[in-house]
Amino acid sequence: MLHDLFSPSVQHALDLAGIFVFAISGALLAVRKNFDVFGIVVLAEVTALGGGLFRDLVIGAVPPAAFTDLGYFLTPLVAAALVFFLHPEVERIQTGVNVFDAAGLGLFCVTGTTKAYEYGLGLTASAVLGVATAVGGGVLRDVVANEVPSLVRWDRDLYAVPAIVGAAIVAFCLKYEALTGLTSALAVVTAFALRLLAMRYHWRAPRAWNRRSTAVEATE
Amino acid sequence: MLHDLFSPSVQHALDLAGIFVFAISGALLAVRKNFDVFGIVVLAEVTALGGGLFRDLVIGAVPPAAFTDLGYFLTPLVAAALVFFLHPEVERIQTGVNVFDAAGLGLFCVTGTTKAYEYGLGLTASAVLGVATAVGGGVLRDVVANEVPSLVRWDRDLYAVPAIVGAAIVAFCLKYEALTGLTSALAVVTAFALRLLAMRYHWRAPRAWNRRSTAVEATE
Amino acid sequence: MLHDLFSPSVQHALDLAGIFVFAISGALLAVRKNFDVFGIVVLAEVTALGGGLFRDLVIGAVPPAAFTDLGYFLTPLVAAALVFFLHPEVERIQTGVNVFDAAGLGLFCVTGTTKAYEYGLGLTASAVLGVATAVGGGVLRDVVANEVPSLVRWDRDLYAVPAIVGAAIVAFCLKYEALTGLTSALAVVTAFALRLLAMRYHWRAPRAWNRRSTAVEATE
Repeated sequence: MLHDLFSPSVQHALDLAGIFVFAISGALLAVRKNFDVFGIVVLAEVTALGGGLFRDLVIGAVPPAAFTDLGYFLTPLVAAALVFFLHPEVERIQTGVNVFDAAGLGLFCVTGTTKAYEYGLGLTASAVLGVATAVGGGVLRDVVANEVPSLVRWDRDLYAVPAIVGAAIVAFCLKYEALTGLTSALAVVTAFALRLLAMRYHWRAPRAWNRRSTAVEATE
Repeated sequence: MLHDLFSPSVQHALDLAGIFVFAISGALLAVRKNFDVFGIVVLAEVTALGGGLFRDLVIGAVPPAAFTDLGYFLTPLVAAALVFFLHPEVERIQTGVNVFDAAGLGLFCVTGTTKAYEYGLGLTASAVLGVATAVGGGVLRDVVANEVPSLVRWDRDLYAVPAIVGAAIVAFCLKYEALTGLTSALAVVTAFALRLLAMRYHWRAPRAWNRRSTAVEATE
Repeated sequence: MLHDLFSPSVQHALDLAGIFVFAISGALLAVRKNFDVFGIVVLAEVTALGGGLFRDLVIGAVPPAAFTDLGYFLTPLVAAALVFFLHPEVERIQTGVNVFDAAGLGLFCVTGTTKAYEYGLGLTASAVLGVATAVGGGVLRDVVANEVPSLVRWDRDLYAVPAIVGAAIVAFCLKYEALTGLTSALAVVTAFALRLLAMRYHWRAPRAWNRRSTAVEATE
């Protein structure tokens, strides 16, 4: 039974942890952009809940989990308050935040893929929605903050690939009816480890071949 | 009976008035950004209908009111035409427009909260959606116009707080089964008055404590 | 029977062709913005599927076609790969791409209007959604790429008018029960031809009357 990959309370605690660290990354960007306290809250909520909200609208899970589970809404408020009062301290542990963000990425690509499949989508569509769950909040964060999304910038460490690998593992396991708590955890850990390695060794994705964009590069 | 807070025709007239003034604010931004006539129409429609559209998608009210009530679609067109032909005159009465915008803010946070609750959402989620109904159109307007959303900028007068207060009053009344035409009107007027005071006295929301962002401030 | 305007396989092939050329335009923008390979894929998918996704969420067609038809998802990947490896060649045939983009515009405003009407929306709302289907992907592309949407810029050739005319023809035919494969094709061709003429003669939409925006113009 797909719902029982992890025990419900473990699953819920993991979800809230992922939401919390995503919210931290949104709140920190808001501080860097000099937004006021509502800007901090808005970016925290959008970053934390945006990916899952998009997934739920697409699969028809309305009202989305973001609006039925009070903890999902309150957790980003806690993250926003923390950043509001202690942001120099939070920035100082940026590496720690990035590690948790990597954990959130791994967790959400797996739970997103699983939930989409439970709602009857095909394997490929489920994996795509799993990736969208994991990376969508960050894209929305950057769109609202009027920045080029970090996800698509060539000068940032790989972020999409770990989520794609995690979602693909889940889809593969679903296809062969091998999705258990163990294989799910394996997918989470694989995506998590890949993201950590990408940050450690500054893995980057290639840009188009034969670009004629010297000028553009110089100005960016 | 929640549907009868105001008589249906009064409610509908108020909705259209709110949509109209929100559309004016979108159309004026389009003129300032030097967009063409379709840019004016797009920003007018997005600003006026975006918040309600988001709420309706989240609560599963499809097709959303924006697409079932012809008046909701046509009203922003009238606002766009007015701004297209008379925008210096409209800008001259900017203060008047701001007063109406404040009225729209008050109205939409109340009707948004009420509608979400009617669709079965919890009190907190309903209030959040009420706020989103009131401020969402403005955020979408700024995103489409490629601007930092006015809502999150520290150098703009308070906009979120009045909507939050209005929505909270409604949620409180719903909790104690005290939502009537009178208490609804009270919530609208409170939000409206708070926004007027925020504009009059330039109330602003604080930014994060201990920011190290002198450089950012200097360049903005 | 509305579903049989064209034979299903012809309709599907046309859809994929439209998706392909829209994806090309998204991928080319990503290369110009110096995005990495995932940026190219994201912009290709968003441009190609965004308009239809919005329409399907509004009319309640969930999961949207973009997530049920594997071809809709894979086609933009092919376009992204093509641009990734051969983008100087693709840019060299920009005029050809623009012609196909015009064809996609004509096709999607017609199929979008028809699908919305099939789902029970009114004639005006259906036409609006048809236009949104045709132009929505391009707006989302520009929002994600952090650009002012091409649709609303005064210095770009007419893009909205052809889609509006095509959608209006379909709505008119629906009203008088005259929508057949022939009249549908006529609407597609009319929108297509109007867009070609707009590009050929640089037709532009007017900006607001009596603008006082000399300074803005000078800096853009």
